[in-house]
Amino acid sequence: MKLSNSYFYTLRENVKDEDSTSGNLLARAGMIKKSSAGVYMIMPLGMKVLHKIETIIREEMDNTGAQELLMPSLILEEVYENSGRREAFGSNMFALKDRFQKNYVLGPTHEELFTMAAMMKGRSYKDFPYTLYQIQTKYRDETRPRFGLIRVREFIMKDSYSFDTDLDGLHVSYMKMFNAYKKIFDRMDLNYKIVKADTGAMGGLLSEEFQALCEIGEDVVVNCEHCDFSSNLEITEVIDQSVPSTEPYQDIELVATPNAKTIEEVAAFFGCQADQFVKTLIYRVDGKLYAFLLKGNRELNETKALKLLKANEIELANFEDVETVTKAKVGFAGPIGLSIPVIMDQEIVNMRNFITGANQSDHHLKNVNIKDFEVYKTADIASVKEGDICPVCGKPLVFTKGIEVGNTFKLGTKYAKSLGLEYLDADNKLQPVVMGSYGIGCERCMAAIVEQHNDEHGIIWPKSVAPFDLGIVVANIKDETQVKLAEKLYNQLKQQGYDVLLDDRKERPGVKFKDMELIGLPIRITVGKRSGEGIIEVRERTADENQEMSVEELYAYLKQA
Amino acid sequence: MKLSNSYFYTLRENVKDEDSTSGNLLARAGMIKKSSAGVYMIMPLGMKVLHKIETIIREEMDNTGAQELLMPSLILEEVYENSGRREAFGSNMFALKDRFQKNYVLGPTHEELFTMAAMMKGRSYKDFPYTLYQIQTKYRDETRPRFGLIRVREFIMKDSYSFDTDLDGLHVSYMKMFNAYKKIFDRMDLNYKIVKADTGAMGGLLSEEFQALCEIGEDVVVNCEHCDFSSNLEITEVIDQSVPSTEPYQDIELVATPNAKTIEEVAAFFGCQADQFVKTLIYRVDGKLYAFLLKGNRELNETKALKLLKANEIELANFEDVETVTKAKVGFAGPIGLSIPVIMDQEIVNMRNFITGANQSDHHLKNVNIKDFEVYKTADIASVKEGDICPVCGKPLVFTKGIEVGNTFKLGTKYAKSLGLEYLDADNKLQPVVMGSYGIGCERCMAAIVEQHNDEHGIIWPKSVAPFDLGIVVANIKDETQVKLAEKLYNQLKQQGYDVLLDDRKERPGVKFKDMELIGLPIRITVGKRSGEGIIEVRERTADENQEMSVEELYAYLKQA
Repeated sequence: MKLSNSYFYTLRENVKDEDSTSGNLLARAGMIKKSSAGVYMIMPLGMKVLHKIETIIREEMDNTGAQELLMPSLILEEVYENSGRREAFGSNMFALKDRFQKNYVLGPTHEELFTMAAMMKGRSYKDFPYTLYQIQTKYRDETRPRFGLIRVREFIMKDSYSFDTDLDGLHVSYMKMFNAYKKIFDRMDLNYKIVKADTGAMGGLLSEEFQALCEIGEDVVVNCEHCDFSSNLEITEVIDQSVPSTEPYQDIELVATPNAKTIEEVAAFFGCQADQFVKTLIYRVDGKLYAFLLKGNRELNETKALKLLKANEIELANFEDVETVTKAKVGFAGPIGLSIPVIMDQEIVNMRNFITGANQSDHHLKNVNIKDFEVYKTADIASVKEGDICPVCGKPLVFTKGIEVGNTFKLGTKYAKSLGLEYLDADNKLQPVVMGSYGIGCERCMAAIVEQHNDEHGIIWPKSVAPFDLGIVVANIKDETQVKLAEKLYNQLKQQGYDVLLDDRKERPGVKFKDMELIGLPIRITVGKRSGEGIIEVRERTADENQEMSVEELYAYLKQA
Repeated sequence: MKLSNSYFYTLRENVKDEDSTSGNLLARAGMIKKSSAGVYMIMPLGMKVLHKIETIIREEMDNTGAQELLMPSLILEEVYENSGRREAFGSNMFALKDRFQKNYVLGPTHEELFTMAAMMKGRSYKDFPYTLYQIQTKYRDETRPRFGLIRVREFIMKDSYSFDTDLDGLHVSYMKMFNAYKKIFDRMDLNYKIVKADTGAMGGLLSEEFQALCEIGEDVVVNCEHCDFSSNLEITEVIDQSVPSTEPYQDIELVATPNAKTIEEVAAFFGCQADQFVKTLIYRVDGKLYAFLLKGNRELNETKALKLLKANEIELANFEDVETVTKAKVGFAGPIGLSIPVIMDQEIVNMRNFITGANQSDHHLKNVNIKDFEVYKTADIASVKEGDICPVCGKPLVFTKGIEVGNTFKLGTKYAKSLGLEYLDADNKLQPVVMGSYGIGCERCMAAIVEQHNDEHGIIWPKSVAPFDLGIVVANIKDETQVKLAEKLYNQLKQQGYDVLLDDRKERPGVKFKDMELIGLPIRITVGKRSGEGIIEVRERTADENQEMSVEELYAYLKQA
């Protein structure tokens, strides 16, 4: 592509409403442009990257034998009602009516339609297994779109769905996708971790996430310093290292603590550590109030809480609810005398004589023991902390942040059962089909790559997804020798199969170099003063210096590169 | 692709709710599946066709130097309000609110967003021309989706937009697209006509349509028997061949016509031809009532009427309105004494002593003349009929029906002006950008190809878009010699670059042959009884008989084919 004949622009300044490195760099490089909150135009240069990402995904999907199709986005609302997911998605789903007042939604994910597509009369076990996929636009009405392409409301996803007759078959189909995913993310040069993740309240047998590691990530990836354990914070088990306390039980004491409401204030008041304090958190879970007891230095893991209660929604109770339940100001909740179910973290079992709120404004209780209140359930409901020990090898855990670029999910028979997808087994009996689902966010990959591959000058695209393989800069467009050589190079390199950008604009060389760095092509070739001798300058995007070489040397160099 | 390992199905019976040949055949061939009214799933075999269609379009677009990008479908409603098109689209546009009650629509076409994308500060005339395109999903809330993929509510469109500094530039950009379109539709083997079409009430300089000719088409393509004149019925000029009547004026007579309401009945009553009668049609145009006068044998051309009145919407007035205006039952409207504007077709100018309704129930008037009533406008407002004469050469016109698969449009400065897209000219003055827009309906092409290429056995895909280049049928899957030869052929042909389907299912040969004909691959290779000798049977989709040949002969044959 020749820039002189093209639509091309870059922005010198940082983009004000972009709150991430990738969003800012992609916008500045003229690759994306915001259309409305969480909705982007993918501009021509970005489209080239997106195509390359899609091609990598499509090639690896086709290699597994998966077959591509295309589902609509406009889906009857009843389809999600039938599967029981309309409510689960709630206002995350865009809903609309057609001119006949019929209810539709914009598909956020397509388990339902694929299940329906797979329905064919008289399907026999011999027709399995198969895997279908699409590269298609999804819609989710995110509460807070952010981080450029990372959390958006309209985006392209590769989603695939496997169909098997039994769990062994599912495992084979799952592993094919799983291995294809590793190839895909490796080809994109992403630094990622594969972590076990939550299978959700709706059931499901196994969920794994591909987390691209970077600071901006919204997921916490828990790793072991020593072994290869890796898990999403949401589901990581806390290994209780405490031993039963042998302290003698002491009598409960009511203590006035007028200015101590936070854990820190209470600990300071009593002159003790946070972990000698038991905090009581009031939550509303699927509409019902619960109290959760945790050591003072722990946080509630909401995913674990939901799973324990087989619920869909959890949120901190509002002030009014807390004050009604505790009959006290917020900040003084405790387990004794509460009329709502109390759920206790496992780590409290070994404690004695701890401090809790008194359910009385400006008061706490000292020397509380488990025998003093009623417990509805005891379980591991806390989030792990850095330094907690690895559930596999016992060494300390460390945290990194990740962007979920892909996930793989053994669904089992959930959708087949709710929507009626069956096959005839060898005995001519109807059985539910066993499914898996697998997703990759295409724009999110693009953003994650930029988050991981950039410097102060701009983007550093991996070769596999760079918008062009290389860029030729004509230093002085008025110098005919330079222009001629550049054109010759451009045509010859294109013939050799390279995707080449030629910057033949009437701009100063400095502007062209800056643009080339910002848009992040792997190799820059400058056709400058020594053009008469057939000498050009070559510079890899990450190198500090140019290398002078002849055109012949360049061809050899590129073959090696 | 081997069918034994694939998701594959066909339907023996016609599909009940498909009202077109293409819809029925595509559904039966397992290429599409209806999801809801006017919304389809493109199934794997159909996806292969759609990809080939998209590839042809993409290649020809790229050849013109157009650059691909991708716009969102979710668009702020205000974007269309700003351009003045929100009202024009009306309920054809799907509208929705996000969780913050902000108004969005699903894009039916993207002039606005492309105009906005093209806005960059300080654009100079030197940055032009350029053309941008996308292959992207569109949404239109059609009143009556029908004919399979031909009139749907969600579909993929290639839309491109050209940006120039003046009309000469626009013409060059336009012709590039126009010529690319011819290549595209030629490559798809479509039989089409290019016709002049309406530029709409909103202005625009030139509109041409690419009409794939077939019976099911919703557009009427007007052709000349003699010259190459071709035009959409909507805008074809009626050449008035009448000469001024020299009959003496006679006195108006009120005639009781109790049982004559239709043109035929009135003509029979008076013993005259329909063209001696002038009919009066009451329409509501942008909310206001008008009377249109036409010869009894003519129909009103609504496009011409809209254009004449510079209006957006036209519909027949309801019975109540007609009765109020005419002070009579429906069926007796006439021009004399009407209080609404009367618009008269040009052909009436030369008439004398004609019959009209009397604006009195069960009565008509004889010997009416133009001098007897007031005319607001006289113009060509009638639709041409077959047999009318060609505006270019005077020979008779003939009609064919067409499906609009593409259109090209010189927009001019309409969007640039309404949305503020300007450039700095050589004198550093701001000027509006001159735009063109160009569309191709991808699924509609697929349907039009099937409408034109089928027989009683199924689809006959042109080579350029067939889901596979050829299909190999193993006659007897239990015969090891056959299976071995078929596998060998399959692998070798794939290595030679052919896209091959291998039917290795455990089915009777008759079933396999029928399926192969239904899905319409250009060439079928049967590996049967003479496999031991290395002899196979070859049959083109349109041939009546097999040709026996050796494998070597096959390779030579395919190279020629």
